[in-house]
Amino acid sequence: MNARLKAEIICTGSELLGGKLNLYVPLFYERLAPLGFAITREQSCGDGLEDIASCMRGALSRADLVLVCGGLGPTFDDLTRAAAARVLGRSIYHSKECEGILRERYGARVRLPNLKDQCRLVAGAKYIRNDNGTAFGELLRKGRKLMVLLPGPRLEWEPMFGQCLNAEIKAAFPGAPAVASVKFKIAGLWEPQAEALLRPVMKKFPTAAYTILAGPYTVEFIAAAPAGSGLTEKIKAAAVKILADRIYGFEDETLASAVGKKLSAAGKTAATAESCTGGLVSELLTSVPGSSAYLQGGAVAYSDAAKIKLLGVRSATLKKYGAVSMQSAREMALGARKLFKSDYALSVTGIAGPDGGTAAKPVGLVFFALAGKKGVRVFRRQFFKTRAYIRACAANFILDELRKII
Amino acid sequence: MNARLKAEIICTGSELLGGKLNLYVPLFYERLAPLGFAITREQSCGDGLEDIASCMRGALSRADLVLVCGGLGPTFDDLTRAAAARVLGRSIYHSKECEGILRERYGARVRLPNLKDQCRLVAGAKYIRNDNGTAFGELLRKGRKLMVLLPGPRLEWEPMFGQCLNAEIKAAFPGAPAVASVKFKIAGLWEPQAEALLRPVMKKFPTAAYTILAGPYTVEFIAAAPAGSGLTEKIKAAAVKILADRIYGFEDETLASAVGKKLSAAGKTAATAESCTGGLVSELLTSVPGSSAYLQGGAVAYSDAAKIKLLGVRSATLKKYGAVSMQSAREMALGARKLFKSDYALSVTGIAGPDGGTAAKPVGLVFFALAGKKGVRVFRRQFFKTRAYIRACAANFILDELRKII
Repeated sequence: MNARLKAEIICTGSELLGGKLNLYVPLFYERLAPLGFAITREQSCGDGLEDIASCMRGALSRADLVLVCGGLGPTFDDLTRAAAARVLGRSIYHSKECEGILRERYGARVRLPNLKDQCRLVAGAKYIRNDNGTAFGELLRKGRKLMVLLPGPRLEWEPMFGQCLNAEIKAAFPGAPAVASVKFKIAGLWEPQAEALLRPVMKKFPTAAYTILAGPYTVEFIAAAPAGSGLTEKIKAAAVKILADRIYGFEDETLASAVGKKLSAAGKTAATAESCTGGLVSELLTSVPGSSAYLQGGAVAYSDAAKIKLLGVRSATLKKYGAVSMQSAREMALGARKLFKSDYALSVTGIAGPDGGTAAKPVGLVFFALAGKKGVRVFRRQFFKTRAYIRACAANFILDELRKII
Repeated sequence: MNARLKAEIICTGSELLGGKLNLYVPLFYERLAPLGFAITREQSCGDGLEDIASCMRGALSRADLVLVCGGLGPTFDDLTRAAAARVLGRSIYHSKECEGILRERYGARVRLPNLKDQCRLVAGAKYIRNDNGTAFGELLRKGRKLMVLLPGPRLEWEPMFGQCLNAEIKAAFPGAPAVASVKFKIAGLWEPQAEALLRPVMKKFPTAAYTILAGPYTVEFIAAAPAGSGLTEKIKAAAVKILADRIYGFEDETLASAVGKKLSAAGKTAATAESCTGGLVSELLTSVPGSSAYLQGGAVAYSDAAKIKLLGVRSATLKKYGAVSMQSAREMALGARKLFKSDYALSVTGIAGPDGGTAAKPVGLVFFALAGKKGVRVFRRQFFKTRAYIRACAANFILDELRKII
């Protein structure tokens, strides 16, 4: 992956530092990765001229391609053009050609100061048409490097890529190698365990770039390599051999969608009985479009009364073992299978915390059961961290177990 | 607001440059603004040692406070600690104190290489306890500047602010002009409506800084002003007068916690019957610790059979009006109230999409009912955008209606 060209992103606008999410970086990644670029840094800065200029200087010193987004409007705080001129040591001029384009679209209104200001370009710039706004994009060469100025609104810059920007970037970097990637979705391993298992793969194919992301009871492992090198295919084969059934899918697969696919393929249905996860498992299952075809329903049985009445858990069981027990989990799953007349039923009962833990049954202790035609299996697991994290781990655990028995 | 100190954020992790949204900057903003800081730059960089180090060098040259998030884990790509040591010209040592803390929590497992590595600190660092993970945070002074190293997962770094980080930052910058802020949690308005209603308030108090964040069926409105100026109190009074009952809470209140507070105060209980939200409403309600005191249970009645069997919806109703109808919503809520013997019961049935819409019942159409002692109220709403967004809007809508009738 060393051969990839480097791109840096600069996003201007104080709102990005004042509470607003920056949604653009993944969008730029989607567009630049297939052109052979790795994004190596992103900077968000305010609207000040020297702020923007210092981001540009740094980025131009490190990267081959610099994308600057925002600050091309006609108002007082739009200083990206001036910052680029300062950094490149160039002047700004009024482009007759740009004025002609705006004149064609807006007629005499182009004489308005705001519109006239939009016809200014940095000396040596190649302009990029903007069919959805008045700010032109600008392509600026500096030696073998390229800096691109784009207007801030996505509606304005997004069409520019297809119209000409992809072609301009390709033309500016004729040797750029495209990149292919593969994302493994893994359950049942914590991050260090996944890394230990995958280390031989990373050692065997050291030229690829690797990322490991930890989630609740899940891990994502991403490998990227030059397209056409066959490397991602080899990595995929090697990782599948090691991780086997721990991989529940690739790319955008979720545990719920993987369960859904297997249920659909087998023509089977499922139901849920949840206590401590409070509906999270069924919420995840139904987040998949079309899940009504295989999810019969779910019972959130938070109280003992609900466990008895809805799911037929015996009050003797609750009395003897407690609601958080192997035995209650077992009866909950059997009850849900009967109630919803489903092929499979799962149950979750535990202590999500932060209160309610005891020495014998600490916060994070969760019992599960899976009921099917062949009987019922029970599980006991101890999770850690916060209420939300414990619930997420519990939901993912039982979805993964369901996936494996279908 | 000009005298504010400068803070810069550095987020490490190649995933942030490889397609993953950076959700953290607004969260850091929320925490640093009340302490008197303006965020003046944010940088996201990869996992490389020199990448991280160069971000740190730049940030330390410009800002008073530098927050570095991520890269403190025990795996090969966790190099933030090493980068900080390089930039500050310091060594890294094994902290007996940190080992003691981990030993108390994990016992003999601390001898594992992964855990042992987590006890390393940059020389001169003050460690920050991490109750939700194994990576310690680190406070590093450089002259009058402060660099803070935080673990990447939000679940780990978020509690650190309340536990000690706020106090440590305040102590490090005793002269910082404190900023007071108030966050309004609003339901039932879209962002432009909220902005239009609040414009007179912003005009009347122009020296405060304002932020509006849009959520599904909800809006957050944040006003910040110098502490002790009395401005936020005045803004609060003015906004409450305008928005009245549309404000469901302040600061960290959620719709579910607001519902929970009202139920607890009234000594009442609730139950849910969900179709298109698939358990989301009960998941939200049970995400609040202690919710078992007032949530009796929930039925996820995805299939017609479940609606009939669990909730007693008449098959004649389903046949005549369909599952997505005023009438079915009504019977679902009445059935849930009876089944769970709760004071209140809510129901949700709609078309979450992306498929299943018709001209008469398009994607996003949702019917609701609220049953109580005095009878049942029904609602019909049309939402838009994606399946997840429609479900989130529907859940928030009915939680808000429940809140208002308790």
